[in-house]
Amino acid sequence: MASLSVRIDLGPGNRIGPGKIELLEKIDASGSISAAGRAMSMSYRRAWELVEEMNTLFCGPLVSPRTGGRQGGGTELTPLGRSVVANYRAVEQAAREAACQQISALEAELAPLTSAAE
Amino acid sequence: MASLSVRIDLGPGNRIGPGKIELLEKIDASGSISAAGRAMSMSYRRAWELVEEMNTLFCGPLVSPRTGGRQGGGTELTPLGRSVVANYRAVEQAAREAACQQISALEAELAPLTSAAE
Repeated sequence: MASLSVRIDLGPGNRIGPGKIELLEKIDASGSISAAGRAMSMSYRRAWELVEEMNTLFCGPLVSPRTGGRQGGGTELTPLGRSVVANYRAVEQAAREAACQQISALEAELAPLTSAAE
Repeated sequence: MASLSVRIDLGPGNRIGPGKIELLEKIDASGSISAAGRAMSMSYRRAWELVEEMNTLFCGPLVSPRTGGRQGGGTELTPLGRSVVANYRAVEQAAREAACQQISALEAELAPLTSAAE
């Protein structure tokens, strides 16, 4: 099955796509930037750079140190971070639903071998 | 204004996005793979590779030598090539319309400076 992914250009040089969103989701799940980066075969440095970039792009940080409690020392998404992820996933879902018919038309034009391999 | 672009995964390693579609459109407009590549700051070799890749991916070639007449020797899109471009642009348009509201929500979360620079 063909699938659709979206990139949203938010200004010059500022683009948000499936990679950054997956990184945010994995930080949310693991509480760790390094674990999230590892899960995506990304260096710690690269994961940090992407987080820093996103923290500057929006009106507040998307990722912040987790404070207090027994889990102190980890990392978590801020409410803004969760909202950005949710809005991106909603864009993606709306786009997929709207484009379903045309994607089928593209699939019908694929070479038989490629279709069979799916 | 934020804008949305789409990538369509059509199988392992086979993805179609705004770059390949723009190349097809520029070949259609110029009748030349090299002119289309130049207009996109792409080497002739790279433009050819992308065309070859697309010609294999679908059930027939998207680009073919132009035959006959005074314009013989150039390159043109096949009916299948035109159909793939049209279907991709329809996917994109449907996705943009469907996601308009959520993209505005993302825009509202941008840093003020970034929004102002747009």
